[in-house]
Amino acid sequence: MALIGAELTRVEPGIVEITLPYRDDLTQQHGYVHAGIITTIADSACGYAAYTLMPPGSDVLAVEFKVNLLRPAKGERFVATAEVVKSGRTLTVVRADVQAVSGAQRELVAIMQSTMMRL
Amino acid sequence: MALIGAELTRVEPGIVEITLPYRDDLTQQHGYVHAGIITTIADSACGYAAYTLMPPGSDVLAVEFKVNLLRPAKGERFVATAEVVKSGRTLTVVRADVQAVSGAQRELVAIMQSTMMRL
Amino acid sequence: MALIGAELTRVEPGIVEITLPYRDDLTQQHGYVHAGIITTIADSACGYAAYTLMPPGSDVLAVEFKVNLLRPAKGERFVATAEVVKSGRTLTVVRADVQAVSGAQRELVAIMQSTMMRL
Amino acid sequence: MALIGAELTRVEPGIVEITLPYRDDLTQQHGYVHAGIITTIADSACGYAAYTLMPPGSDVLAVEFKVNLLRPAKGERFVATAEVVKSGRTLTVVRADVQAVSGAQRELVAIMQSTMMRL
Repeated sequence: MALIGAELTRVEPGIVEITLPYRDDLTQQHGYVHAGIITTIADSACGYAAYTLMPPGSDVLAVEFKVNLLRPAKGERFVATAEVVKSGRTLTVVRADVQAVSGAQRELVAIMQSTMMRL
Repeated sequence: MALIGAELTRVEPGIVEITLPYRDDLTQQHGYVHAGIITTIADSACGYAAYTLMPPGSDVLAVEFKVNLLRPAKGERFVATAEVVKSGRTLTVVRADVQAVSGAQRELVAIMQSTMMRL
Repeated sequence: MALIGAELTRVEPGIVEITLPYRDDLTQQHGYVHAGIITTIADSACGYAAYTLMPPGSDVLAVEFKVNLLRPAKGERFVATAEVVKSGRTLTVVRADVQAVSGAQRELVAIMQSTMMRL
Repeated sequence: MALIGAELTRVEPGIVEITLPYRDDLTQQHGYVHAGIITTIADSACGYAAYTLMPPGSDVLAVEFKVNLLRPAKGERFVATAEVVKSGRTLTVVRADVQAVSGAQRELVAIMQSTMMRL
């Protein structure tokens, strides 16, 4: 997260938001932010969201996730918002949306559905 | 890919391998390479593998992918090998394995199933 | 759909609901409705939801889907609600929730994220 | 499984095969076997495959799965073959292929990647 310049911009029980400002070196051949980077912030948001509902001292691990990439990731910044769908004793299921923001405009660029595990 | 230091180490029709040497700044809180990085090399390998079977002048785009993270990503380098399962006119389905390599030891750390689109 | 006794109970542009009454012969070894049946109604709801936003004469095909099974599927009936997230020229991305209903009680039992194709 | 006429045709440690003969009432609007049915046999094969590597007395539950539907499911019978990729203490990751068989011809119609949990 430090490498790419992302930061936590909202933390509530079961909901976490991560914001990533655009940076040239995060883009692929067409000048859009790489799908792997968009996935990274979505996955991190899911992990933190799951973590907010776990008992103190827990550790969280991504078991698996699935991403649909909806539009090219172009914008001034990218906001991943994750929300816990079901928090279980061992497994937590989370959904996330990633939006590209440019001025007042917001566009959904990716959605994720993931499974997190408590250790 | 340049940002993280990954490179193409095998390209055949329908099969592509990408190798990523370990680097401290790619790790998360436990010292393992971040799931987002492992996903990035798997996704890139899938995209290139799909591309090898497309007509000249095609452009490839990831529609979606799903990753299972099997073990902590620790090793000297990480090798993502992608193989096309079905190459269609519009959509191509690809599977990838990511192995962590340390000396003579190889461990499967992640598997991906993805859909690529030809533009 | 006829085989299992499911029916369309809501159809709006981009949103479709399918309802399946409980039936003994749809259950697995524990007496819960089989994951494959829950998936079938979620997938059908996603397909119809995508179809509502396509031009007349279109045909819709499921490219892929991913399901998380959250709780045992026990209830008097099961309601799959699908909503289009992005409707594109070729591909449509849809999310669905499946709830188990017993009297006034509703429980989320599964969530789906899927990609549909227009033919 | 009994409802649709599927049966276990191969059981080895970590590998299970389920065969489903074609039946008119399992088809959708185009005469192909419904994606939900193909998913059901793939999911069942994954569950049994995971189960073969679990300690006696275990119970297995599907946490999630992802399916890519590659071709229309037409054939005399459908064979789902599942193989365990990683068998863990709590979670098991499995891949499955579903082939349509007609005489001597075999065609891959779907692939699955899934996570099973031991109870």
